[in-house]
Amino acid sequence: QGTRDQPPALVALRDRLLAAVVACFKRHGAAAIDTPVLELRETLMGKYGEDTKLIYELQDQGGELLALRYDLTVPFARYLAMNKITNMKRYHVAKVYRRDSPATTRGRYREFYQCDFDIAGQFDPMIPDAECLKIVHEILTDLQVGDFLIKVNDRRILNGVFAVCGIPESKFITTCSTMDKLDKMPWEEVRSEMVGEKGLSPDAADRIGEYVRLHGGLDLIERLLQDPKLSQSKLAKEGLGDMKLLFEYLTLFGITGKISFDLSLARGLDYYTGVIFEAVLLQQENDHVQEPVSIGSVAGGGRYDGLVGMFDPKGRKVPCVGVSIGIERIFSILEQRVKASGEKVRTTETQVLVATPQKHLLAARLKLISELWDAGIKAEMLYKKDPKLLKQLQYCEDMGIPLAAIVGEQELTDGVIKLRDVATREEVRM
Amino acid sequence: QGTRDQPPALVALRDRLLAAVVACFKRHGAAAIDTPVLELRETLMGKYGEDTKLIYELQDQGGELLALRYDLTVPFARYLAMNKITNMKRYHVAKVYRRDSPATTRGRYREFYQCDFDIAGQFDPMIPDAECLKIVHEILTDLQVGDFLIKVNDRRILNGVFAVCGIPESKFITTCSTMDKLDKMPWEEVRSEMVGEKGLSPDAADRIGEYVRLHGGLDLIERLLQDPKLSQSKLAKEGLGDMKLLFEYLTLFGITGKISFDLSLARGLDYYTGVIFEAVLLQQENDHVQEPVSIGSVAGGGRYDGLVGMFDPKGRKVPCVGVSIGIERIFSILEQRVKASGEKVRTTETQVLVATPQKHLLAARLKLISELWDAGIKAEMLYKKDPKLLKQLQYCEDMGIPLAAIVGEQELTDGVIKLRDVATREEVRM
Repeated sequence: QGTRDQPPALVALRDRLLAAVVACFKRHGAAAIDTPVLELRETLMGKYGEDTKLIYELQDQGGELLALRYDLTVPFARYLAMNKITNMKRYHVAKVYRRDSPATTRGRYREFYQCDFDIAGQFDPMIPDAECLKIVHEILTDLQVGDFLIKVNDRRILNGVFAVCGIPESKFITTCSTMDKLDKMPWEEVRSEMVGEKGLSPDAADRIGEYVRLHGGLDLIERLLQDPKLSQSKLAKEGLGDMKLLFEYLTLFGITGKISFDLSLARGLDYYTGVIFEAVLLQQENDHVQEPVSIGSVAGGGRYDGLVGMFDPKGRKVPCVGVSIGIERIFSILEQRVKASGEKVRTTETQVLVATPQKHLLAARLKLISELWDAGIKAEMLYKKDPKLLKQLQYCEDMGIPLAAIVGEQELTDGVIKLRDVATREEVRM
Repeated sequence: QGTRDQPPALVALRDRLLAAVVACFKRHGAAAIDTPVLELRETLMGKYGEDTKLIYELQDQGGELLALRYDLTVPFARYLAMNKITNMKRYHVAKVYRRDSPATTRGRYREFYQCDFDIAGQFDPMIPDAECLKIVHEILTDLQVGDFLIKVNDRRILNGVFAVCGIPESKFITTCSTMDKLDKMPWEEVRSEMVGEKGLSPDAADRIGEYVRLHGGLDLIERLLQDPKLSQSKLAKEGLGDMKLLFEYLTLFGITGKISFDLSLARGLDYYTGVIFEAVLLQQENDHVQEPVSIGSVAGGGRYDGLVGMFDPKGRKVPCVGVSIGIERIFSILEQRVKASGEKVRTTETQVLVATPQKHLLAARLKLISELWDAGIKAEMLYKKDPKLLKQLQYCEDMGIPLAAIVGEQELTDGVIKLRDVATREEVRM
């Protein structure tokens, strides 16, 4: 349930997509690592907030207690700590596993690819953070998925808001995880969960409500830096100062047009400590799609300065910031686009079919195709002793093979082959 | 236990290896599919003989009972049956999982890549089977892993041997799985397992012993076809007739020099029904390696005509033959070779570092690097506001970045950059 086999046409499309993402990561100088699909259960515990229940656990068959990785961020942090690496720019494209309710038409699966880019190390503020946003912008532009918006916020600003609204610090994380639902439910429902389930006072919730409605750019940042209430919070001031710096860098990158500083953005995971962001696709109004598919967030990430330290015996911290591209959702959009266009994706790359027009020529075909393979040419033949020429040419047309190399009795005698262009039917002897 | 993180240098090497294997599969006209890492437990049961105990099972967390795939063959057969496909040439490169005793120095892991190529469909005998052997030959030649030998046998010949040696049919499979240990232990030990654990008569075991010593080429096939005892078995005669045909095709491919018809080859898995084969590397005598590493089989496969039918509700069979490349073992050889040579593998592809020679030029760097990225150029910069030029050039040397694009105050004024060749120190203004 919630997984699927991918037939050749889908794999071909997916490989094209992943290649574009990897090309971007390489353009930004990242190196690739790989980690096992299996992690120790204890490695994953306490990292994902309420979503910990979605982790797939392996049966205890003796030996270590294992689980399937839930994302690529925690394995990366573990990798850095285990290898005492304090400085690294890496990408990782691999499958992760979540026992979530699948919604396969929207591209939500229990097994899905993540494409992660992360920068670890102690650097001057917001330079790597800005690069992560640039990467999201480049990839979504490259893939031509339509108009998009990247929402940005900062955990420190959120915590500052919570503090000045009178929320006790012990409730910051749980309040945050409720706020994270704002993209799926209206403020009224989120508010009632805050008051009902999470036990905030109605007044405090209302005060939060004032802030989460705000979104904008540099102007909003400036205004909040002057906000008499918010400027009482040291954390909020720090976050706002960095947010201003971030927007300056994004201006130099020329991408602020698609970026919104949005106080409603919370992100569910426990481990974020600074900037957080999420890219969403915007439904085009002039899109006359029969069933518009809401696909939600297509990329997300943020800064997690404390995670690596959780895996280091001495608690040594390595600041990190990173982004994860939600390739499956983008994939489901492109899949539907290909379907709608009726475009036929070739699933093989065969250049030439080795064919014979008469019987008893299997040996000639085997000899010729072997020479072609050894010369690095992509070649096929039908696995029949004496196939009809028509069948062989039909196979070329079905599979999109452009050329047929034909050896008949005459060609064998003359020591040549007849090369046929399948589309034009032109033939040359060579 | 038995898994490992792969740092950038290893991933770069592995990607190079996998690319060579995939190139060969594409050269032979295969399309790629992908299947989930998770399979229903029942799908995997009864397919792997004694090795079923090595399957990783997931905990029952509600819902379906799942396991991690053990190979790529059973998922392929399930895929064909579920989608009613009767004709397909596919490759699949992915990780599989086995709770085996790891021997990591020999490239034996619990999580490892398999690279599979399979041909499904009803075809004239031995043409696809011969192609599978050609593929093994091409890949092992391409990868330059040293001298190798491909052992070939046929389950029908083995069963014929068992029959004429007086083994009851009910003991064929279990006898086969004991014989499979011949590559790891001498005949005397295998014989004593046959007699002791498997309950064969000492006479029958000795008669088998006569046959398993045989290996050769067309001459041996001809001799066994005349063997008065063996020719009593219809199965053996069928198998020997096909083996002769196979060798004729392999002669046309020009690869019989590396192929040995070997009656001791058994292969452990239950599902084989015809030709079976296995490639082993030969230790070179003039190799002066300090610790020669025995790495055993590097590719294997065979014909499994009954497996797809096990997943079809009506039991419809789809004949299949395929090969699996043991990439991890080849990988561990190449890894040691790279280590021994001291060759430094570049782990990133960055073409140019954007650098500044003076302070207060971060904005200029950010603008320039953004232009480079947008132009598709692989570019990096240091994440510092005011890095020293020496540090920046040192980074180029450490990472093998060939060029530095330098913007100083003078360049800014003149509207140019200085492009520096890191190795030669030559500079041009442009």
